[in-house]
Amino acid sequence: MKKLMSSVALGVLLATAAIAAEPVPEDLRETALELFKALPSTIPSVKDNKITPEKIELGKALFFDPRVSASGVFSCNSCHNLATGGDDNLETSIGHGWQKGPRNSPTALNAVFNIAQFWDGRADDLKAQAKGPVQAGVEMANTPDNVIAMLKSMPDYVTWFKAAFPDEEDPVTFDNFAKAIEAFEATLITPAPFDAFLNGDTDAMTTEAKQGLALFIDKGCTACHAGINVGGEGYYPFGLVERPGADVLPENDKGRFMVTETADDSYVFRAAPLRNIAVTAPYFHSGKVWDLKQAVAIMGESQLGENLADEEIDLIVAFLNSLTGRVPEITYPILPAETAETPRPISIIPSSQ
Amino acid sequence: MKKLMSSVALGVLLATAAIAAEPVPEDLRETALELFKALPSTIPSVKDNKITPEKIELGKALFFDPRVSASGVFSCNSCHNLATGGDDNLETSIGHGWQKGPRNSPTALNAVFNIAQFWDGRADDLKAQAKGPVQAGVEMANTPDNVIAMLKSMPDYVTWFKAAFPDEEDPVTFDNFAKAIEAFEATLITPAPFDAFLNGDTDAMTTEAKQGLALFIDKGCTACHAGINVGGEGYYPFGLVERPGADVLPENDKGRFMVTETADDSYVFRAAPLRNIAVTAPYFHSGKVWDLKQAVAIMGESQLGENLADEEIDLIVAFLNSLTGRVPEITYPILPAETAETPRPISIIPSSQ
Repeated sequence: MKKLMSSVALGVLLATAAIAAEPVPEDLRETALELFKALPSTIPSVKDNKITPEKIELGKALFFDPRVSASGVFSCNSCHNLATGGDDNLETSIGHGWQKGPRNSPTALNAVFNIAQFWDGRADDLKAQAKGPVQAGVEMANTPDNVIAMLKSMPDYVTWFKAAFPDEEDPVTFDNFAKAIEAFEATLITPAPFDAFLNGDTDAMTTEAKQGLALFIDKGCTACHAGINVGGEGYYPFGLVERPGADVLPENDKGRFMVTETADDSYVFRAAPLRNIAVTAPYFHSGKVWDLKQAVAIMGESQLGENLADEEIDLIVAFLNSLTGRVPEITYPILPAETAETPRPISIIPSSQ
Repeated sequence: MKKLMSSVALGVLLATAAIAAEPVPEDLRETALELFKALPSTIPSVKDNKITPEKIELGKALFFDPRVSASGVFSCNSCHNLATGGDDNLETSIGHGWQKGPRNSPTALNAVFNIAQFWDGRADDLKAQAKGPVQAGVEMANTPDNVIAMLKSMPDYVTWFKAAFPDEEDPVTFDNFAKAIEAFEATLITPAPFDAFLNGDTDAMTTEAKQGLALFIDKGCTACHAGINVGGEGYYPFGLVERPGADVLPENDKGRFMVTETADDSYVFRAAPLRNIAVTAPYFHSGKVWDLKQAVAIMGESQLGENLADEEIDLIVAFLNSLTGRVPEITYPILPAETAETPRPISIIPSSQ
């Protein structure tokens, strides 16, 4: 028995050594460039929304303004906190009246590159997304009319909307509110060591991270997690090979089925974009998993039907760490002061809820 | 009747004209300098807490970190929002479990100059104050042990504490947590037109603001609201001459009586510091008054026994507007990411509450 244990221990040691010593493929960068894309060095353009400095500044103010919520407690930044990876580090967000939202808050960082927004892709883009949480009863519990009344009550906001939308007669609208937030969010791009590697600096990633990248490709993770955001480009069933337990995949949340009402879309979700994943625990739409290693193991089982070895998981996590990028420097905004016309905060919870 | 109304209207017009035309006293600046003090041009020193750049940076991170609260939802900045005058624009703050606090959140701006902290002065200084909301059940509902466990779980925080307290063997303590926050808050100084006026630029304030300052002195407002913070230097009964109604002065909050248990201190509060008052509605410890003009009128009646004329109130408000200062530019911090050891957020409300 003692001998057997020693053999097993030796085997593990050898396996570790073998993996650690496995050379990084010479053509790794070329292979990676076929699957991924480095972040651009400039702010990307977005559909139907010309991005200007004035729009970005206005969007930043709106993003950080808690008066966008009915209670005056929550701003966009509450659940998409740019200090903590663009999310809130909660299983699911806490909103109006201490209600808990149904899904984990996704990061706002690099979100501009996702194919669509929300875990089920129900918003085509960030300007559509921005309107959702404002009106959701469990989040900001506000109405477009009340948001506009709030903004119009403060002369500085009216001036800023005029500067951001100079050709419009009545620029303070809910559509423009959403467009300004989208413009600000388009600036939230976080270049990472992985980008430096893709751009030609092969030393930007550690050997382990490069070995992890090679494994990530070899194992087939890239079937769902590819492109500029290492995910966020398509929809896939959670549990492609083996459905995880209800602790991770709650039965009552059928994902994209709620958007398309197509049976094939049951438990289908947008593949998570993996940039900054190491700093945005907890994981999955349910937010039930806090450990990145455990999350990688679950993905191996449920999506690839494979029990990844501990050493393999470590290498993949080393690669995922190389996706943690530099958040742009943001000067905290000074917001306009309320006036006599500003709607007062409403903290009561509607009895219907 | 018609004639009478016309006479009244004419009288009001003449009174307005008379006040508006009243010359600003030649020695206004000299008089003001005997009562007030301009903000310093450098960060003030504080007792038993040497302020260093490392301590300020650490304090800024802690001030903005929502993981300081048990739920992970509230940071110091939630109720003392530096984007909105250093307070939260709510009647009383909303905290853990959507509970409402008992008193209006005071601004963190220039708070370092107050004689003591909280409406009842129960904390001697900002390092004592910083420990309060963290542990209050209706605010952050956390414990010192849990805060320290949270901070020690993140290597970057440990490094930052070592840099801020280089001579200490075990620097990650609740005392040092509070000292770092105090150091950051000591930087939150907002020079205003009033300071420029005191410093010799007599054109920095409008004529109305200067007339308002003269009135503010003449009427005796300076008996309570003087010094560097135009208040915040002493304790006075709210309702010195005439007690306001329970809508403004709730009967169950006896103010400083709760600290000293002295009958004389019933309904005694620290006189509000008036810097940035125009951008920190609603007013009074109860937060029941949203309109600054109404707040000035209430003060006239309750503290001076005087019904101030509308025109007088306008001039005093013009003076108060000159106390709105420039908030220091703050780069939004990037906080350390949680680790496997980081305590998980607790959103449930203890049943004992």
